[in-house]
Amino acid sequence: MTGDQAMDLWVREVHRGVVALSFKVEKTLFSGKSPYQQVDVIQTAGHGRMLLNDGIVMISERDEFVYHEMIAHVPLFVHPDPKRVLVIGGGDGGTVREVVRHPGVECVVMVEIDEMVVHACREHFPQVSSALDHPKLSLHIEDGVRFVAETKERFDVVIVDSTDPIGPAQPLFDKAFYENTAGLLLDGGILITQAESPFYDPDLQRPMLANQRPYFPRLHLYLLTNLTYPGGLWSFGFASKGPDPLRDFDPRRVEASGLRFRYYNADIHRAAFALPTFVTETLCDTIDAAGV
Amino acid sequence: MTGDQAMDLWVREVHRGVVALSFKVEKTLFSGKSPYQQVDVIQTAGHGRMLLNDGIVMISERDEFVYHEMIAHVPLFVHPDPKRVLVIGGGDGGTVREVVRHPGVECVVMVEIDEMVVHACREHFPQVSSALDHPKLSLHIEDGVRFVAETKERFDVVIVDSTDPIGPAQPLFDKAFYENTAGLLLDGGILITQAESPFYDPDLQRPMLANQRPYFPRLHLYLLTNLTYPGGLWSFGFASKGPDPLRDFDPRRVEASGLRFRYYNADIHRAAFALPTFVTETLCDTIDAAGV
Repeated sequence: MTGDQAMDLWVREVHRGVVALSFKVEKTLFSGKSPYQQVDVIQTAGHGRMLLNDGIVMISERDEFVYHEMIAHVPLFVHPDPKRVLVIGGGDGGTVREVVRHPGVECVVMVEIDEMVVHACREHFPQVSSALDHPKLSLHIEDGVRFVAETKERFDVVIVDSTDPIGPAQPLFDKAFYENTAGLLLDGGILITQAESPFYDPDLQRPMLANQRPYFPRLHLYLLTNLTYPGGLWSFGFASKGPDPLRDFDPRRVEASGLRFRYYNADIHRAAFALPTFVTETLCDTIDAAGV
Repeated sequence: MTGDQAMDLWVREVHRGVVALSFKVEKTLFSGKSPYQQVDVIQTAGHGRMLLNDGIVMISERDEFVYHEMIAHVPLFVHPDPKRVLVIGGGDGGTVREVVRHPGVECVVMVEIDEMVVHACREHFPQVSSALDHPKLSLHIEDGVRFVAETKERFDVVIVDSTDPIGPAQPLFDKAFYENTAGLLLDGGILITQAESPFYDPDLQRPMLANQRPYFPRLHLYLLTNLTYPGGLWSFGFASKGPDPLRDFDPRRVEASGLRFRYYNADIHRAAFALPTFVTETLCDTIDAAGV
């Protein structure tokens, strides 16, 4: 991946050996190898700057708003009064950027294992990493698995903004991690987890959701579609110690917040919990039905 | 595109010069040049058989159910009593296959310009083209633009299952076509149109919807996500001479039909009309808001 504008250069991510998504590259802005993964930042022709970990697209400037709005605002508008939020992963800062837009949030703790991701995003994605110096944020460069096992802090919402269950993020999909996470959630707390592609990855979704199931009375899946993940359709897990993602959602709160979003809105919030029949059938023994 | 299983062969569709979607190929099953376009059928490694017109993916066996269920069942469950249905394009037969599942439909007319597509799909996609010999179907190999200009027949629902507004389908996006189509819709009739990618193609969506606008008191957009179109998120136009896609939709009709779907269901029907904020903002001067 070298940047020579005279060449017809593309970055290509192959998924499951059968499908590939490629983006036209203008130049490479950063390339480094951390103790955890290969980290690359490229300037693309049509999607702004793009972050790749181990060759897998994490974010692009063009569509990162979809993922970050959906991972943050769905739980923050369901929980009745989220004050303390923990973000595991999310080194680019986009999730924190959305979380701190809620004035009621008093404290955000972010635990990212890979300092190189944070440095690269501070440098090359100023509009994504813009909240990494926010006064409400406490940023730890540390293993999230160890953090949730050891911390005495408690939270209203935990967001696991992780890479896939291969490589450094693998333990974030284990039962022990979810048990510890459930333990540090306050009453009525909500856990959001990056939950892969319903089309391509049901074999990853089933165990991760089954690993969460014992610790949460409610467990739902919700959907979004972005440009940079294979299959377009993507999912988050919504595990809750209390609130129902739809019955406890009041669209007037979105309106009253005065916040402006590019993807999220009250209709999209509800619609995201409507699952295609094949998704429901695949996961029906693990997740709860949402009464859309 | 030749089939040699010893090679690492992929079929690659570039969109807008900045993004490409590639599928691993096992072999080519059919390749021909009709008066209208290049037609190819390939066996892929992960998506079953795939039809490409002029190198652009039309359908794959793995995910065609998404597109065909959403183009057919949304209007057929909104219209109070659809008896006569016209399908323009849709040479693979998938749309007709879904339409004839509604026992109340008495007559389906399908007008496909390219006989080679029909032949190739009869041969290589038996489960998609399975209704092309259905007794309720009248299949015309003919220009859809001329058909709607000349026919004296009238319809409850017209479905434009077309390729993109480049190549042979271009006139299907013109004002004259929509005016003629509105003219052959019975009272309370509904027109559904393939309406491109909300992420990549707002410059195609805006004129096509503006061209429909003068002839329909209601005009909405609804969404689906499949595996084989660039950007994942895709859209259909819902133009109506009467019925509202949500207020006139009774989910009990879906249940009572006894029909089984793989993507469509009553929740998905409603959710499909929830638009991301950036879509609404882009098209707000053309389409109506759906009261999701």
